[in-house]
Amino acid sequence: MLLKFFSAVVCSTAFFIASAQENTHQEIIQTFHHEALGNSFAYHKLVDLSTNVGPRMSGSAGGQKGVEWAIKTMQDMGMDTVYTQEVMVPRWERGAPEKAAIHIANQKPLSIAVTALGGSVATTKGGIKAQVVEITDFSQLAQLGTKELKGKIVFYNIPMDPNYINTGFAYGQAVRQRWAGAIEAAPYGAVAVINRSVTLALDNNPHTGSMSYKGAKDSIPAAAISTIAANQLSALLKEHPNLELSLEMHCKNLGLAKSYNVIGELWGSQKPNEYLVVGGHLDSWDLGDGSQDDGAGIAHSLEVANLFQKAGIKPKRTLRVVCFQNEEFGLAGGKVYAENVEAAGEMHYFGLESDMGSGIPRGFTFDTEDAHIEKLQILVPYFAPYGIYEFKKGGSGADLSPLDKSAILLAGLRPESQRYFDYHHSVLDHINSVHPRELALGAAAMASLVYLVDALDLGFD
Amino acid sequence: MLLKFFSAVVCSTAFFIASAQENTHQEIIQTFHHEALGNSFAYHKLVDLSTNVGPRMSGSAGGQKGVEWAIKTMQDMGMDTVYTQEVMVPRWERGAPEKAAIHIANQKPLSIAVTALGGSVATTKGGIKAQVVEITDFSQLAQLGTKELKGKIVFYNIPMDPNYINTGFAYGQAVRQRWAGAIEAAPYGAVAVINRSVTLALDNNPHTGSMSYKGAKDSIPAAAISTIAANQLSALLKEHPNLELSLEMHCKNLGLAKSYNVIGELWGSQKPNEYLVVGGHLDSWDLGDGSQDDGAGIAHSLEVANLFQKAGIKPKRTLRVVCFQNEEFGLAGGKVYAENVEAAGEMHYFGLESDMGSGIPRGFTFDTEDAHIEKLQILVPYFAPYGIYEFKKGGSGADLSPLDKSAILLAGLRPESQRYFDYHHSVLDHINSVHPRELALGAAAMASLVYLVDALDLGFD
Repeated sequence: MLLKFFSAVVCSTAFFIASAQENTHQEIIQTFHHEALGNSFAYHKLVDLSTNVGPRMSGSAGGQKGVEWAIKTMQDMGMDTVYTQEVMVPRWERGAPEKAAIHIANQKPLSIAVTALGGSVATTKGGIKAQVVEITDFSQLAQLGTKELKGKIVFYNIPMDPNYINTGFAYGQAVRQRWAGAIEAAPYGAVAVINRSVTLALDNNPHTGSMSYKGAKDSIPAAAISTIAANQLSALLKEHPNLELSLEMHCKNLGLAKSYNVIGELWGSQKPNEYLVVGGHLDSWDLGDGSQDDGAGIAHSLEVANLFQKAGIKPKRTLRVVCFQNEEFGLAGGKVYAENVEAAGEMHYFGLESDMGSGIPRGFTFDTEDAHIEKLQILVPYFAPYGIYEFKKGGSGADLSPLDKSAILLAGLRPESQRYFDYHHSVLDHINSVHPRELALGAAAMASLVYLVDALDLGFD
Repeated sequence: MLLKFFSAVVCSTAFFIASAQENTHQEIIQTFHHEALGNSFAYHKLVDLSTNVGPRMSGSAGGQKGVEWAIKTMQDMGMDTVYTQEVMVPRWERGAPEKAAIHIANQKPLSIAVTALGGSVATTKGGIKAQVVEITDFSQLAQLGTKELKGKIVFYNIPMDPNYINTGFAYGQAVRQRWAGAIEAAPYGAVAVINRSVTLALDNNPHTGSMSYKGAKDSIPAAAISTIAANQLSALLKEHPNLELSLEMHCKNLGLAKSYNVIGELWGSQKPNEYLVVGGHLDSWDLGDGSQDDGAGIAHSLEVANLFQKAGIKPKRTLRVVCFQNEEFGLAGGKVYAENVEAAGEMHYFGLESDMGSGIPRGFTFDTEDAHIEKLQILVPYFAPYGIYEFKKGGSGADLSPLDKSAILLAGLRPESQRYFDYHHSVLDHINSVHPRELALGAAAMASLVYLVDALDLGFD
């Protein structure tokens, strides 16, 4: 009987949604979806951002162009107000292209695909050349110690675990080699670190990303090599343990620069001083055009406002679109935003972030307690017609994380994750990787969630 | 309370799966998924088929190569038996590349992207040239009548409806212009028909597919033009209603040829004379390499057998992999297979088809009555950890459709459909469109379903 009941729930969503008002909610959600699929506003905006602005490192010329683009785009949308929030961001430049090569005695050097990690220092002029020690588990560092690592290049070769269905978990496990690789190896006298690109794809594109020297006495150069290069180097090390790697990087840390969060609002009809925040981050890495990370989140968020406008629906609370600055490189924009919220004593009711790419929406995670998650299952029948079933406990996103999650319901869009890390922080993060309908459905799902949280008062009491 | 209960069901799958045996079922499903994600057997086989065999029109040299490939592949897998089933298939050849151009007085002819439809006759030698009448709804044919259509080329310009979330429904509505366009226009004296490619993508790749002359007195040439060309032609017709279209096609219908279904079996441990059938179709169109339609279904089905083998699990009933011949062009293989089942009085317990491409699996449809669908919701907690929630009423697939659905539980894999018709029957149906993890997850889902239907006896009593 239990099973029969469950089946009835899954099969006939009408079971829950019976009142006239609830039918209206369904119609509004359908309107959002038809508008998004029919007119592709999000996709057109993303093509514009990716093509006419391109890469948008915080503090770079592209980053500034991104700020201007966001202001103009929201002004053109006719939002009730558009303004900026000053953010000081760290500037880092890649400089001339990196080079790396494997050197085996009496053989021609073998070039491999490499990219400096964001925040890394340069190598000495002309590059460095040293023997390589492969590490497949962090515990090996202490086992090998200074004796084996001094003067060497430490090569972290820790693949993402393919068994996770949500690839974000596999990323979370594997990314330590990128983030903390230099910190961990420097105390043993390593002269540089390289890591296997943090991706499940086997290809020749290296993936960059931020790294840290926090607490480290010595700052050693840090770079990522492609997964093909990592397999190749690993295989060659077995045959030629004394091979050397040359590495040349010209990157620079340039101190702080001024940049901005860009904010647009549609004022609420009943509680204009309470806020529904949707956002993504405007900054990107420099290798691709940042369509996935996080152009998609920007396009999603703009489309949320556009869908409310096109449907002629004023939310009860004020809808605020925030294009955050500098997610990738210290989270300065998210921190400044949260400080401003606190200083102004603003009442935030709901926050929704998109920073997992443009894939088909599978659900949302909510940074709240179990009882609230249970309450949120009321959403399932509204979303089931659109193939969305997952309303789970989990993080929202980096940009919203500085907000006070005990006072604000925070959520994150969860698109299908199989392809995301193929693109992430690499040259493949490009508009070509975005499917217009998948992007549209993500935006419509976000608009629907914002609408329902506002209309049904699903945030904190 | 209702909602709270629902939430408990969705959130804690352990609620249903409590006994030791059910834990074992979960472990087996996990084993299938880890093996599929870790070793990519399906993807490696599909790369082999798409690259080393390529397009596989029934009755063509490529079609025969596909048959030999399937035999050898299943023999190499060490299946308990591998054999073929003779199928007579219609042969149609495209011949020299088609040409089409728009002619406007005093302007240079404008070439447009065109492909002959499968089964179409050729144009007269040197091609035809005629004025064009655009049709956006079939009812317009009778309204215009012989007076307006005689001697003209009828241009069906009926886009797929973007509002369906399952794009298969939109395809089903729009495909009549391709399948029946010639039959419907010929009685009014039209000299040829062209149709807007049946895809949601706006690009310059025409999509072929089968068409029919069934019941038609006159066989007129039929071709598809790209969606970009359709938009262009439609716009130009508004300005230049007397423009002419030239069309040249060299295709040929060549009668019947001998081909084969290819079948492999893993014998059952308890009921070897009852069958669990998994299959896809081996034949493809000629424009791409047939990776999506239906190389993916072949790869999925082979991987189902491989996963049982690798996990060391013998199903209770015999698992039969069927690589059907000629789905695209008359369904001859499916019909022969069903005739053989009936003639031999074979007991088929379950049939599962994959013919919707390599996308991430979203669920399954079952060709059975509501009460049975309700019973099948027992599957939800087994699949929820893999993001699969949909166990709905619906068709299985063309190849299984000639089987007696009142006696056999028939089902179809339902992968995410947003991208499928971008590729379908066009040059984009290529191995580059296949994501290894999405393909692997589809195969693992199929193996899991076959395993559970067999282990839990979920078929017809």
